[in-house]
Amino acid sequence: MRSARRGPGKDLGLKITDIGEFGLISRIAGMLPRHPPGVLVGIGDDVAVLEVSPGGVLLATCDIQVEDVHFRRAWITPYQLGRKVVAINVSDIAAMGGSPAWALVSLALPRDTRVEFVDELYGGMQEEISRAGGAIVGGNVSTIHSRVVIDLFLMGRADPEKLIRREGARVGDRILVTGTLGDSRAGLELIQRPDLKVDSAHARRVLDRHRTPSPRWREGQCLASSGRVHAMVDVSDGVLSDVGHICRASAVGAEIRLSDLPVSDPCREVARAAGKDWEDWALTGGEDYELLFGVAEDQADEVARLVEEETGTPCRCIGSFIPRDEGIFVSAPGKALKKDLSRFRGWDHFR
Amino acid sequence: MRSARRGPGKDLGLKITDIGEFGLISRIAGMLPRHPPGVLVGIGDDVAVLEVSPGGVLLATCDIQVEDVHFRRAWITPYQLGRKVVAINVSDIAAMGGSPAWALVSLALPRDTRVEFVDELYGGMQEEISRAGGAIVGGNVSTIHSRVVIDLFLMGRADPEKLIRREGARVGDRILVTGTLGDSRAGLELIQRPDLKVDSAHARRVLDRHRTPSPRWREGQCLASSGRVHAMVDVSDGVLSDVGHICRASAVGAEIRLSDLPVSDPCREVARAAGKDWEDWALTGGEDYELLFGVAEDQADEVARLVEEETGTPCRCIGSFIPRDEGIFVSAPGKALKKDLSRFRGWDHFR
Repeated sequence: MRSARRGPGKDLGLKITDIGEFGLISRIAGMLPRHPPGVLVGIGDDVAVLEVSPGGVLLATCDIQVEDVHFRRAWITPYQLGRKVVAINVSDIAAMGGSPAWALVSLALPRDTRVEFVDELYGGMQEEISRAGGAIVGGNVSTIHSRVVIDLFLMGRADPEKLIRREGARVGDRILVTGTLGDSRAGLELIQRPDLKVDSAHARRVLDRHRTPSPRWREGQCLASSGRVHAMVDVSDGVLSDVGHICRASAVGAEIRLSDLPVSDPCREVARAAGKDWEDWALTGGEDYELLFGVAEDQADEVARLVEEETGTPCRCIGSFIPRDEGIFVSAPGKALKKDLSRFRGWDHFR
Repeated sequence: MRSARRGPGKDLGLKITDIGEFGLISRIAGMLPRHPPGVLVGIGDDVAVLEVSPGGVLLATCDIQVEDVHFRRAWITPYQLGRKVVAINVSDIAAMGGSPAWALVSLALPRDTRVEFVDELYGGMQEEISRAGGAIVGGNVSTIHSRVVIDLFLMGRADPEKLIRREGARVGDRILVTGTLGDSRAGLELIQRPDLKVDSAHARRVLDRHRTPSPRWREGQCLASSGRVHAMVDVSDGVLSDVGHICRASAVGAEIRLSDLPVSDPCREVARAAGKDWEDWALTGGEDYELLFGVAEDQADEVARLVEEETGTPCRCIGSFIPRDEGIFVSAPGKALKKDLSRFRGWDHFR
């Protein structure tokens, strides 16, 4: 493949909005070699798994944050932004059961950026990565004419025998999730509508969850050590979208029970005040950075107890993996919400 | 360090243009831990060296390319841009004597970007990285409101016993450089002034050198295997700036002999046509992506011959490392160009 001139002529003139983010990723994946040397997991997953020495693997992931696309400077301090940029990447490493190790940071800054902004941003990044046992080891800075861009690359360590992937979920496995869902979406609502009347401690709780999420690396490592988790992802785009990653990789379907979604009181209160549906926030809100994973039915209670004992984080069973041809759907007691959501893919950058 | 509020109050209100790119990098380096676990070379160098297994190291580098700062779409095709983005990073790995292995790519694209642009960009990246024996293994895509941003993160392998760093140059060592200098700057001149009258083969040569530079990874590996190189950098910002990196890391000075700079006929021709000084282009033009390294005086000829025999690339001696207190200067036959250039740092993104 030397240039697109040799590509399929029918695609000439197509824009990326015509094929969407996931269409673009599939297209890119199709252009690259399928099994490059030393690559155990490659393009398409959130994290690449690389064989750096005989029997030793390295995890590698990156995430670009663009001002006024991913964040607004009026809504988050530079310190919080630094913490969040690291947390998002740590969450990806956590979803494989890995340990965050080393980060490189690319920064593109408008020329009139204040030094204080960079100080606070690095203060936040340093704080979050040192909490997770990692370090910033390099990077580069550049000017940009418009708005701030931050790209973070994170490498992590993992025991190759214990690594948890998206594939491996089995029909009948219980779907478990750490912590609570929807808080981040509630925090975003409060930022956009600061006039909403809610309890101040509740407001602080959901705002913190949105601005400085706590990636579940301890929980991920505990789950990897247990050796009982069949498949795992982090909930970055929303449960419905992220469970779909496991379903596609594992060739299964999923039933999510609406009444079992773990939703906090603060989230419910904000949703009520806003006249919005907290169930919708829990299913599709995104940016929760919880872990979602599959465990054999007879071990689900024990694994949930183990995580809570070791990390203090509760785990809730929210459904089951089912045969692939039954699709992905949400069920509610007394209701027949059988609409197949297999094609629901959550937030798409280009649509 | 939790936020800049605890930092030095006197810096409040400073802009990044007040302290410059190198000032900003020093400031960031000062905020981070000096010796994080497993980090053999950390922030401040172009490449981090990480201990991934007992006795095994991984090299990691990244470089962000911003439209209308680093490239203009009218001046380079997406295919060429893809090749260049990879080449720049491969050159950094080459300067340590490493082998390029795995890359992750972060792309931020305006919504109206054509799919063909992405196809061609990836075509170029894939071509260049496969030439160097590496592979693209992951990444992410995002929208951006303004212009294209491409950030490439490259990991490389190296023999820790053979790794070449910036420190290690000794007084008396000869300074050698691969290939020719100034071609890329000549190519840029031709892009900006397409009316210049020059031989078409010469024009093509310097345009190619600017748009699709050939990173010297074969030469870097040959030099590392020789075990005779004391210090090395790649020439990305210009010889004068880049030799300064070795001088600072090795606590030496440098004398560059103007008459010995390897400048191609095409570069000389473009400079003459433009009424510009080719010596200036060779010293400060940047983007040559040649290797510059120090070798003991009595081994310089042999090392140069070895590289030429193994790779076909000529190496030229352009000066010597001298005592630190003599500074960095350029000498010319019959002229006393003794101006100390120790503080010359080449292109600064923020000044």
